[in-house]
Amino acid sequence: MQNSTLLIEEKVFKDPVHKYIYVQDRPIWDLVNTKEFQRLRRIRQLGTSYLTFHGAEHSRFSHSLGVYEITRKIISQFERGGYPDWPREERLLCLCAALLHDLGHGPFSHSIEKTFAMHHEEWTCRMVLGDTEVNRVLRDIDPSFPDKVAGIICKSYDKEIVVSLVSSQLDADRMDYLLRDGYFTGVNYGTFDLERVLRVIRPHQGHLVVKESGMHAVEDYLMSRYQMYWQIYFHPVTRSAELLLHSIFGRAKVLFEDGYRFAHLPGPIRRLMRRELTVDDYFRLDESLVQSMFQEWTDERDPVLADLCARFLNRRLFKYVPVDPEDRDTIALFLDWMAVKGWDPLYYAQIDFPRDLPYDVYRPGELEGKRPIYLMDDRKELHEISTKSDIVRSISGLHQGRHQLFFPGELLGEPDKPEAIRALLDGSAPSPANP
Amino acid sequence: MQNSTLLIEEKVFKDPVHKYIYVQDRPIWDLVNTKEFQRLRRIRQLGTSYLTFHGAEHSRFSHSLGVYEITRKIISQFERGGYPDWPREERLLCLCAALLHDLGHGPFSHSIEKTFAMHHEEWTCRMVLGDTEVNRVLRDIDPSFPDKVAGIICKSYDKEIVVSLVSSQLDADRMDYLLRDGYFTGVNYGTFDLERVLRVIRPHQGHLVVKESGMHAVEDYLMSRYQMYWQIYFHPVTRSAELLLHSIFGRAKVLFEDGYRFAHLPGPIRRLMRRELTVDDYFRLDESLVQSMFQEWTDERDPVLADLCARFLNRRLFKYVPVDPEDRDTIALFLDWMAVKGWDPLYYAQIDFPRDLPYDVYRPGELEGKRPIYLMDDRKELHEISTKSDIVRSISGLHQGRHQLFFPGELLGEPDKPEAIRALLDGSAPSPANP
Amino acid sequence: MQNSTLLIEEKVFKDPVHKYIYVQDRPIWDLVNTKEFQRLRRIRQLGTSYLTFHGAEHSRFSHSLGVYEITRKIISQFERGGYPDWPREERLLCLCAALLHDLGHGPFSHSIEKTFAMHHEEWTCRMVLGDTEVNRVLRDIDPSFPDKVAGIICKSYDKEIVVSLVSSQLDADRMDYLLRDGYFTGVNYGTFDLERVLRVIRPHQGHLVVKESGMHAVEDYLMSRYQMYWQIYFHPVTRSAELLLHSIFGRAKVLFEDGYRFAHLPGPIRRLMRRELTVDDYFRLDESLVQSMFQEWTDERDPVLADLCARFLNRRLFKYVPVDPEDRDTIALFLDWMAVKGWDPLYYAQIDFPRDLPYDVYRPGELEGKRPIYLMDDRKELHEISTKSDIVRSISGLHQGRHQLFFPGELLGEPDKPEAIRALLDGSAPSPANP
Amino acid sequence: MQNSTLLIEEKVFKDPVHKYIYVQDRPIWDLVNTKEFQRLRRIRQLGTSYLTFHGAEHSRFSHSLGVYEITRKIISQFERGGYPDWPREERLLCLCAALLHDLGHGPFSHSIEKTFAMHHEEWTCRMVLGDTEVNRVLRDIDPSFPDKVAGIICKSYDKEIVVSLVSSQLDADRMDYLLRDGYFTGVNYGTFDLERVLRVIRPHQGHLVVKESGMHAVEDYLMSRYQMYWQIYFHPVTRSAELLLHSIFGRAKVLFEDGYRFAHLPGPIRRLMRRELTVDDYFRLDESLVQSMFQEWTDERDPVLADLCARFLNRRLFKYVPVDPEDRDTIALFLDWMAVKGWDPLYYAQIDFPRDLPYDVYRPGELEGKRPIYLMDDRKELHEISTKSDIVRSISGLHQGRHQLFFPGELLGEPDKPEAIRALLDGSAPSPANP
Repeated sequence: MQNSTLLIEEKVFKDPVHKYIYVQDRPIWDLVNTKEFQRLRRIRQLGTSYLTFHGAEHSRFSHSLGVYEITRKIISQFERGGYPDWPREERLLCLCAALLHDLGHGPFSHSIEKTFAMHHEEWTCRMVLGDTEVNRVLRDIDPSFPDKVAGIICKSYDKEIVVSLVSSQLDADRMDYLLRDGYFTGVNYGTFDLERVLRVIRPHQGHLVVKESGMHAVEDYLMSRYQMYWQIYFHPVTRSAELLLHSIFGRAKVLFEDGYRFAHLPGPIRRLMRRELTVDDYFRLDESLVQSMFQEWTDERDPVLADLCARFLNRRLFKYVPVDPEDRDTIALFLDWMAVKGWDPLYYAQIDFPRDLPYDVYRPGELEGKRPIYLMDDRKELHEISTKSDIVRSISGLHQGRHQLFFPGELLGEPDKPEAIRALLDGSAPSPANP
Repeated sequence: MQNSTLLIEEKVFKDPVHKYIYVQDRPIWDLVNTKEFQRLRRIRQLGTSYLTFHGAEHSRFSHSLGVYEITRKIISQFERGGYPDWPREERLLCLCAALLHDLGHGPFSHSIEKTFAMHHEEWTCRMVLGDTEVNRVLRDIDPSFPDKVAGIICKSYDKEIVVSLVSSQLDADRMDYLLRDGYFTGVNYGTFDLERVLRVIRPHQGHLVVKESGMHAVEDYLMSRYQMYWQIYFHPVTRSAELLLHSIFGRAKVLFEDGYRFAHLPGPIRRLMRRELTVDDYFRLDESLVQSMFQEWTDERDPVLADLCARFLNRRLFKYVPVDPEDRDTIALFLDWMAVKGWDPLYYAQIDFPRDLPYDVYRPGELEGKRPIYLMDDRKELHEISTKSDIVRSISGLHQGRHQLFFPGELLGEPDKPEAIRALLDGSAPSPANP
Repeated sequence: MQNSTLLIEEKVFKDPVHKYIYVQDRPIWDLVNTKEFQRLRRIRQLGTSYLTFHGAEHSRFSHSLGVYEITRKIISQFERGGYPDWPREERLLCLCAALLHDLGHGPFSHSIEKTFAMHHEEWTCRMVLGDTEVNRVLRDIDPSFPDKVAGIICKSYDKEIVVSLVSSQLDADRMDYLLRDGYFTGVNYGTFDLERVLRVIRPHQGHLVVKESGMHAVEDYLMSRYQMYWQIYFHPVTRSAELLLHSIFGRAKVLFEDGYRFAHLPGPIRRLMRRELTVDDYFRLDESLVQSMFQEWTDERDPVLADLCARFLNRRLFKYVPVDPEDRDTIALFLDWMAVKGWDPLYYAQIDFPRDLPYDVYRPGELEGKRPIYLMDDRKELHEISTKSDIVRSISGLHQGRHQLFFPGELLGEPDKPEAIRALLDGSAPSPANP
Repeated sequence: MQNSTLLIEEKVFKDPVHKYIYVQDRPIWDLVNTKEFQRLRRIRQLGTSYLTFHGAEHSRFSHSLGVYEITRKIISQFERGGYPDWPREERLLCLCAALLHDLGHGPFSHSIEKTFAMHHEEWTCRMVLGDTEVNRVLRDIDPSFPDKVAGIICKSYDKEIVVSLVSSQLDADRMDYLLRDGYFTGVNYGTFDLERVLRVIRPHQGHLVVKESGMHAVEDYLMSRYQMYWQIYFHPVTRSAELLLHSIFGRAKVLFEDGYRFAHLPGPIRRLMRRELTVDDYFRLDESLVQSMFQEWTDERDPVLADLCARFLNRRLFKYVPVDPEDRDTIALFLDWMAVKGWDPLYYAQIDFPRDLPYDVYRPGELEGKRPIYLMDDRKELHEISTKSDIVRSISGLHQGRHQLFFPGELLGEPDKPEAIRALLDGSAPSPANP
């Protein structure tokens, strides 16, 4: 069956990270050309990071192609190696799932998901299973494909190795985003040696494992990941922008629930507030809609909403200082003081700790349902990598995060600050540029 | 005066092209933080090229910082070299003009400018001279600064060397965009050796010249430029998207002038149509506004407008075939035939030749008011570079462009095509991926 | 047969140009481990270029592996494409020839070959056919292999496509050296897009052709080549070192033929002078032998030989000025004058024009027995590339070379130079650093 | 004084690591052109590593230029920053010391130094202080310069900050070699962000410190260093070649002391054996002398010396297996067994542990007289970096090394191995290719 789906001539996309992305299967080509996949061009890969690292303007479209390409390379290496533990019939399914795994991401996903209790995996599945162009392409391959792809994305598919390629501690998703985010931000911490990692992974009894002699390649990858998390993903300026978004959506939700009449409220956002969002609404929910809505909202009557939106668009982000979360007296004092000065702490102050994020450093246990990385020795026995690698053990337990208090920069200029507040704010970082 | 404007501590921006961008002057820092400059984050540097090269999602914000940085490096080298022909007092002015030179670019500039007869240089000047944050920062340096910056951008400033740094055949603008567009698309044709070029340029009697022994460095730069123009900027898939935009704006304008009632028409667009655009409107006119408007327009009653917008957003671009513009019979036949099939040639067919574009290859004459590149020999005599360089002479006269006919892909599938039309369409390129 | 020659596990070499070099065949692995192939570690790839570009210290060993790797990639692409015109049974033979094509290169080949009328291709064949480890490995594959490999290297093998892969206008040899020499010198002119070129070449009726839509990829490669020739390979400082070598060998030969008694003359060099060089001598003739001999020769009684060797080792190269070869009076005057000053023009002066070198720019005709590059259109018709490409046509005819007169720098400091000589020497380049 | 030493026009060297190396001072230019500095072109930077990573053929010449360039950049940043703690008058002295710090390295330094109890720092000082071209250039700047430069290199100079630039935990030497060795081997572990590190170091009370906000930049550098040590510098294949060299020199020394008559023994080597080496001998002692001597020695009557030399030149390196150094019974058994088989354990077996090497990972204490890295906080207080950085603390204590037993590969093929020896050798790595 699958042979009939080959393109007459291989297609290529020029890609700055992988040089070229190769498409040999017609369904992959057709999926790329669906309107749902094209929508990913209007969703940034790194949310608000572009406000810290101006190069980080790349979209989930390019990342999705990259995940597809790495998956293609892994499978192609498995096929060349002739490993009996690799289920060859899963190839096209794997590629589809890799390409589509981020399909349900919304604009500035993290903030919206948190405010409205949504999950992008769920929306990916709704788009795959609903009345969409993507669904039609998948069904044309085989009527079972939409369900299977959704199964892989929700991790309920019964062949673990297929799920692992797309989502695990050593998956095509992470490998692409580390390299891609490193390339577009311009930092080189993300630069591990992809070819070397690909060469040492193996299918083994339904799992993905690493041959022991390849341990250093994986160490290198995990050290890159460690550096990227702390220096890109958890960058406090990015967090600051994220918290601003959170305040905007939080304020809009409260206003909506209070019956406030918005001068401008796009249909999909209205239905999002009402929990009536349809797949078609979701399709329209992209970053240009959100950004142009924010621009309109700078004219809203509600001064808090208008101000927060202007801050976001014009990048007047919150400042931040390290804070001891146990020191409740000082924090309470600060919040009272800012309220007196006219800033509602609900929207203008936040204490943040880099924890509950979609990114993590490697940890050996089965956190978030993610199987740890196993090394396979010459006798085909498996060892969790941190039992063998000092460096992995040492970085997997590290926490560098600090609690930070975020607040409007105007407060720094306030005269007559109480002594405790002055002491607190003296630790403030200078105007946030990136490091 | 200028010393008092230095920052206490240098600020840096991480940049993937120049590694770091250094800011030592407070006014530069303040200009970057204006809302007008931040708006450039919402305008893509390469317009529709991201539809051909998916990496090309970078904004005019990052390019503007890059032009500033190259200008800073050139000036710093002039100062180190101690050249008497370099007017040291122009430094800060030059840096401001370099940073702001693209301030007035609108969303998908080329198409909008063509449809509504606007010029981005004019809007840059309006934003610099009008009631804007940028204007206030400039006036704070010196009351004459807004006029001077506007003068440099409109090329009326009386010190040619200052104008040349920002706009000439060998200016900081081109040097940055060749490197940056090469980096983000992933092609390496744009990779010339910037340090080497910077080392061989000199101020000389009010002009920028190249010392003769540096000729090869400039040849290398011009060859990169030549390759970039033909392979990136004039790529037919990008042209196809551009023509689609042109049809959208053209259709909207006709509808508006005919009194059509748009279900959705943002204020700035309404005033654009009425030729009543204000500086504040222009500030709001960014790509998120245009893209979200297109999304709304996919529901407009006018089927042509709705269809064109859906094509653009979902990347169903026009196909193209090479065509002989002298062969009017065939062209007329084709246009008639497509009209019969229900496609209005006014919006669905275009013949394009890569000519009237903001990009060009190097030509020795004083085209577009741009002074050619002069080599200065050991006796301080000047020679236009193509008189000395075989390679520059050979590429500066070359034209590789072809006329292309663009049309909806659906026409390829039409049964019963007249023979002449079948012959014409047989030259059609396959589904456009990039090369 | 060939299957039994596969390695149980693929071997890799880390390579800075291709990232990794993959070896799947046991005979390739065995050839790399022969002493004749290991000898290539002691021969620099770029002869004297390291005296101009200090990074250019890489050996023919690394280049040979690179040529092998590119050939492997081309063949692998031909096999994946399933082209009927590719003779699959030639695979291993091709790989062996690619790996061994430079086996017979001697130390600073060009100078020695010129002085003693030798050819490295001939020595490659002698090493392949003689009593060597290489010969034994080849015979173990198949008794016909040594002859076939020698045939490919001497271009007498009857399957032109096999010869073309190793030696043609678009061969693996050139592709590797452009990239490799660009990498190690640090110049980026050599950076063309290898993957893109590999994707557009095809086997066609016994020849290697380029599909027409890939023309730009080949233009890009030819422009890189053009730049590399003029800026690296023909660099006058490199020429200066080359001419010094030529004088050393020329002087030693004259002395030897005159019966001079060398205090130090290694056996292989003695037999080279006597035209009695054996394969075993040739094996020992590497750059460490030549350099340590030069060091000994700095103590020879013959002052010319001693001085020339010290100049070479301590990099006191000849200076140079452009000269008009037709102006015989000035040249004669100069040579007479330098002789009066005590410098023998036979060893201390040379006029050089970049012509008779192993490098060339692309020319459309069948020069040096090298078939030009053909584009294949959709109708499978062939067109020599310069008939289709303006840019190739324009650079293939260009000559940028100038005649240069080389001489000892001491002459510049001579007082009381005759006027004509002063005028001539005033054009002298400053102390040669690289550009 | 120093101004008169400026070059009229800056000179540049093209460098693949730093793009360009800039020389503005005449004495630097003159030092580069001395014969002692040019000799460094004939000493490889990484000793035997080229036998593991074939790209690692770069010389100490290019590294020395790189150390100079990084020092120049640091000083230039100190001057721009106007730090009062930087002694501006030390600039030229610093640059000279940086350029010359490796002048006394011999061929394959580590092995020769170990066998003959020599130290390259001592030879650097002898070349700087003796009757050499380098000495003359230094004296021409100022009669005190040779002593001062020697003082810096021997770490006895009284301004610690000057010594620190050339030799400390964060010196120009290490920064260049990590980047350079990474570039030439092709591994990217060595790629830390040099510009970022340079931006965060400061002169402070006679020391070099790091401002606290730059901690991540230094973490990044130390992680690169950690990776490079374990994956490049301590690579067992490189160790294997190193041990072979050690056996060669050890055997030659024993033979010489026993009165053996060498058919070929170059003067400098003879005097090395006699401990009578002069500065002029040392000048001649380069890798071409050693390699050509090894080639001659393959014909020596002593079979051990001849065999070891052939192994080295033809890269038939020792194999290796991990071994427990406490298991003396097995080791003794193995050594006895190999002696019975005809291999003298003194030259053909070694147990190695990566310890006593010129490389190390960062350790917080003042090991080897190297001051640890201090962070300076906003109150100008200093903190040793591992007290602040979890990641530095975790990697600075790690030991990944294993004891390895090296032996001739022929032993693997011996039939009838005793059981304990078979068990031991079963752990043998396959034919050493690089990872």
